[in-house]
Amino acid sequence: MPAKIITISRQFGSGGRSIAKELASRLGYDYYDKEIIEGVADKTGFSRDVVAAKGEEAPGRSVFSYGFEGQGVPGVMNGMSMNDYIWTVQRNVIKEIADSGKPCVIVGRSADYILKDYDNVLNVFICADIEFRKDRIVRLYGETDKKPEKRLEDKDKKRAANHKHFTDLVWGYAPNYDICLNSSYLGIDKCVDILEDLAKNK
Amino acid sequence: MPAKIITISRQFGSGGRSIAKELASRLGYDYYDKEIIEGVADKTGFSRDVVAAKGEEAPGRSVFSYGFEGQGVPGVMNGMSMNDYIWTVQRNVIKEIADSGKPCVIVGRSADYILKDYDNVLNVFICADIEFRKDRIVRLYGETDKKPEKRLEDKDKKRAANHKHFTDLVWGYAPNYDICLNSSYLGIDKCVDILEDLAKNK
Repeated sequence: MPAKIITISRQFGSGGRSIAKELASRLGYDYYDKEIIEGVADKTGFSRDVVAAKGEEAPGRSVFSYGFEGQGVPGVMNGMSMNDYIWTVQRNVIKEIADSGKPCVIVGRSADYILKDYDNVLNVFICADIEFRKDRIVRLYGETDKKPEKRLEDKDKKRAANHKHFTDLVWGYAPNYDICLNSSYLGIDKCVDILEDLAKNK
Repeated sequence: MPAKIITISRQFGSGGRSIAKELASRLGYDYYDKEIIEGVADKTGFSRDVVAAKGEEAPGRSVFSYGFEGQGVPGVMNGMSMNDYIWTVQRNVIKEIADSGKPCVIVGRSADYILKDYDNVLNVFICADIEFRKDRIVRLYGETDKKPEKRLEDKDKKRAANHKHFTDLVWGYAPNYDICLNSSYLGIDKCVDILEDLAKNK
């Protein structure tokens, strides 16, 4: 049975997003990445930047992130932290995408966990060696004041903390996925080849 | 460049050994699993059972496992725990296998870490869902007084603790491998197909 939904979790700088995009294109599947942020932003009234930061990389709960009436979403967040609220809306957006029945590739945002009770889901994790990732983020996103190693470490730590907080699962732990590929070893194209074959012929 | 050495780490009951054996057979590579235990037993004088238990699944250092002269290996273990001693000999056996230059598949025993500075090594982790593994160990190794879940948990915990103790790496964490495959999702044959292709065409 072909995989109808493919979730791609990825280390920062591993090329997971490029792999996901090319895979969706080859399979003719819908592709969801920033589109999820837009859906959540529309439903919550938060800006895209806030949703992007809180929806996948929030380091857990903080007393300062609790929402109150009058903070932009009157009466909606009652008692929920901003992180929890955004995560809840994000989960619903991801489930709506899955429920539409159209085959798709979804990047990040713990979609693997959110869709764990759905059929025909292929859960993928993409990782890569540190040198490959350092080169890639500097090439794609430019240099910043922070050293590339530190940027990788910070982002991955936040993703792992967010995933742990909301799913109680270890991000990147192989038994939590169907297949994990090291893109610096395999190459981006080979990763797409393997996943395309699996999606079609599993 | 084809992979000359393939290391297969695996969850208990995941079929990792069957995958390794079939892969070696298809590629015409030497296969090392129990052969390593025999090599270590011959070099240390310990029984195969002791080497099997201590060489891969020792839960770290214990004051009771320190060796002294007269304990079977006079003067050799000076100051080393039995676990450390067996691990050291095991590491040398694995390096000798790699240094022989003959293509091979090596199962478990942290060979991925031990051979981290060697070229053309493909590091694989095989995992599987709990139900698949429970069925498999009962079918292959029979029932015991201990429940299958507990047997899986105990064995994997020991392997993870041993790996952490000697390598400081998290066992089963995807970024520590080149590819991780879930055999209950993919099937044993598909795992072998993917690895055979990688070994030949990488």
